[in-house]
Amino acid sequence: MRYVCLKLAYDGTDFYGWQHQPQRRTVQGELEKAVHEVTGVWTRMHGSSRTDRGVHAFGQAVSFATETWLSNDALCKALNAVLPFDMVVLGVFDAPHGFHATRDSVRKRYRYVIQDGRPRDPFGRAYSWHVPRELNVDLMQEAAKLIEGTHDFRAFQSTGSSRESTVRTVYEVLVERRLLDHGWRTIIEVEANGFLYNMVRNIAGTLLYVGQGKHPPSWVAEVLASQKRKLAGMAAPAEGLFLLWIEFPGEREDA
Amino acid sequence: MRYVCLKLAYDGTDFYGWQHQPQRRTVQGELEKAVHEVTGVWTRMHGSSRTDRGVHAFGQAVSFATETWLSNDALCKALNAVLPFDMVVLGVFDAPHGFHATRDSVRKRYRYVIQDGRPRDPFGRAYSWHVPRELNVDLMQEAAKLIEGTHDFRAFQSTGSSRESTVRTVYEVLVERRLLDHGWRTIIEVEANGFLYNMVRNIAGTLLYVGQGKHPPSWVAEVLASQKRKLAGMAAPAEGLFLLWIEFPGEREDA
Repeated sequence: MRYVCLKLAYDGTDFYGWQHQPQRRTVQGELEKAVHEVTGVWTRMHGSSRTDRGVHAFGQAVSFATETWLSNDALCKALNAVLPFDMVVLGVFDAPHGFHATRDSVRKRYRYVIQDGRPRDPFGRAYSWHVPRELNVDLMQEAAKLIEGTHDFRAFQSTGSSRESTVRTVYEVLVERRLLDHGWRTIIEVEANGFLYNMVRNIAGTLLYVGQGKHPPSWVAEVLASQKRKLAGMAAPAEGLFLLWIEFPGEREDA
Repeated sequence: MRYVCLKLAYDGTDFYGWQHQPQRRTVQGELEKAVHEVTGVWTRMHGSSRTDRGVHAFGQAVSFATETWLSNDALCKALNAVLPFDMVVLGVFDAPHGFHATRDSVRKRYRYVIQDGRPRDPFGRAYSWHVPRELNVDLMQEAAKLIEGTHDFRAFQSTGSSRESTVRTVYEVLVERRLLDHGWRTIIEVEANGFLYNMVRNIAGTLLYVGQGKHPPSWVAEVLASQKRKLAGMAAPAEGLFLLWIEFPGEREDA
């Protein structure tokens, strides 16, 4: 038995999220089908991030144990030959014995994409959150700095999660305007040692209020200190969220 | 009665093309519904390019005659408020009496997008043609030059069209590698005074053979001179095609 870690990218639009659900098309389900087709064995896949319905990934990390005689490279090619068009294996790597992508990750980075301003991009509906007016990025940057550091992030956790501790260390909250293929976007990237349920979407929804001038940047520190979810902004919609990468002990990934 | 021209962008993925079809979701059909909702009158829309199913537009031109009292700007905003998310009106402009977007255009430009190389982009399936190996762009550029000029383009016309003359003037065939959001793409852009049915897709499919080294660049001149469709390459799939812009007499649009 050997342990492998695979890096996976997918367009979340047509999936009911990562996690296996009966009668639903999920990333985990499609990947397990592909691994079964290639190795002949049904094998449980462990994803580092249980992305919700509509959330995308550039670099999901998935671990599993296998007895396949295929090399990592051959396994990668064989999986891509049978996987559907909206997911792709970027690489397959050896992992230490007992490796588990969900438990063992030490750092993750997500991107949230907002299309602010008109006209709305007809190509962007599944890949960004459209808000009709341009946001004040300077104010959002100021607020973003207040989120960085080690805090209890309970105020940015949606219900439905069962994590024991709500303390996390956020290494960076980047806010910037970036020119993508279909015009300017406001990008929020959050890097942390771990995330609570919906944490990035709740941060994005909260920073949006600041960018719209509804609250001053200092309000974000108040929300954080309150530990009250109801004081924060709405959860930004899933379509704008992209999992960028996952880091494991001993790695240092460049974003 | 006044004549207007509107500029329209759409993601072609979920449309059965431009042209009205019973029981099918088409761009023309959705636009006519929106104009009816805004003006109270069913009005026939004339699109400059009858894009096929799956083909996208950044700048489709549409003409119609209306008695609405709404200003161009108000009409634009009202239409965008009722249009579905995968189409957007970029602007509404006064047009001369009797203006007809299909008949009156003098120049158009299309883009064809190829994702050549691995790994395939899981976000690109509806917006590019994926071919597994990198193309030789130098050879494609050499071949592209042979298509420019005034020729009988019968060899690049798919059946099912009823145009009287098959002579067109192609002003430019640009081939270049370009770094887009999701990685490098090979872009083919064709600008002409008019296009035969499937002409850009047939040119793209023919240039692909040259880029793959299956034929030398000079072969494209032979295909063109033969006036035989069967000698040319396959029609490239619709998903990679984007209508960029349409020009009318007296305009000079910068691409």
